[in-house]
Amino acid sequence: MPSISVLRLGHRVKRDARVTTHCALVARAFGASCFIFTGDRDKKLIETVKDVCRRWGGKFEIKHESSWKAFIKNFRGIKVHLTMYGIPLPEKIEELKKKVKSKDLLVIIGGEKVPRCVYELADYNISITTQPHSEVAALAVFLHELLEGKEFYLEFENAKLKIIPQEKGKKVISLT
Amino acid sequence: MPSISVLRLGHRVKRDARVTTHCALVARAFGASCFIFTGDRDKKLIETVKDVCRRWGGKFEIKHESSWKAFIKNFRGIKVHLTMYGIPLPEKIEELKKKVKSKDLLVIIGGEKVPRCVYELADYNISITTQPHSEVAALAVFLHELLEGKEFYLEFENAKLKIIPQEKGKKVISLT
Repeated sequence: MPSISVLRLGHRVKRDARVTTHCALVARAFGASCFIFTGDRDKKLIETVKDVCRRWGGKFEIKHESSWKAFIKNFRGIKVHLTMYGIPLPEKIEELKKKVKSKDLLVIIGGEKVPRCVYELADYNISITTQPHSEVAALAVFLHELLEGKEFYLEFENAKLKIIPQEKGKKVISLT
Repeated sequence: MPSISVLRLGHRVKRDARVTTHCALVARAFGASCFIFTGDRDKKLIETVKDVCRRWGGKFEIKHESSWKAFIKNFRGIKVHLTMYGIPLPEKIEELKKKVKSKDLLVIIGGEKVPRCVYELADYNISITTQPHSEVAALAVFLHELLEGKEFYLEFENAKLKIIPQEKGKKVISLT
């Protein structure tokens, strides 16, 4: 089955630590198998995400890349850049769903300033509304639509912890 | 028409500045009319969000509240707490859609530690997957489902800026 990877551009340790962590955890929870970030090398970010994977399971990779340009160029598959300036998702979703059935997908999400050339290198520039909000939200809604809600039913292999949904309160079971 | 408000619990200036800003902008972009936060009084957060509203339009209020408990108790309408420990959204979405047709909605999103009593005060505790990820993502997917994707077609009154979606590149028009 084709895979989903997420590329986060221009990570800055001081400013983006939590937002990039949220992006990586959304990628994992919504079915991606790999999260790549450029910008600052951030060991703590990698450790935080790996720790979540160890406890909550699943196969998920996180890594730093030096050159976003080379990475995007060399990626073989469909490249979707999420940006408020792009074409609204509803206009492209059916086309995208067909394409990702047979091809790997790279979802690109920006930091503050996305270089012009990212818009050119991407096969699709897609907006999750044309209002300013959040790359975390854009990534989640995009993957939610692409997966048709299947993220609610994903199973994570070798999880040590699992939540049993409750009307009130918390129930977590330990699987080890 | 009933309104949607979003309550963010336990904001901390240093740690949460950007994540709470993202939550507020998602609330606005996905059809809520009011964002309330408790925890630290953060004037810069309020100013950042108000500045977005001035430029991008729409009626949207942001305010600090001292007591989340009093606020939740006094809210008249449906109270939905988003938490990874709650009942998966697909099991409750139809019920919720019916209820919010005639009643105001308060969506509650947590900070690090959500007091037990929030789970009790909420009418619904709802999970957007039972995996750890992001309150920004949870809020976006929840509102996206509740609005059935209508956020893509919202118009924002008195906007000074408007994006004209492009296949490649950026096009923003000034409306003033």
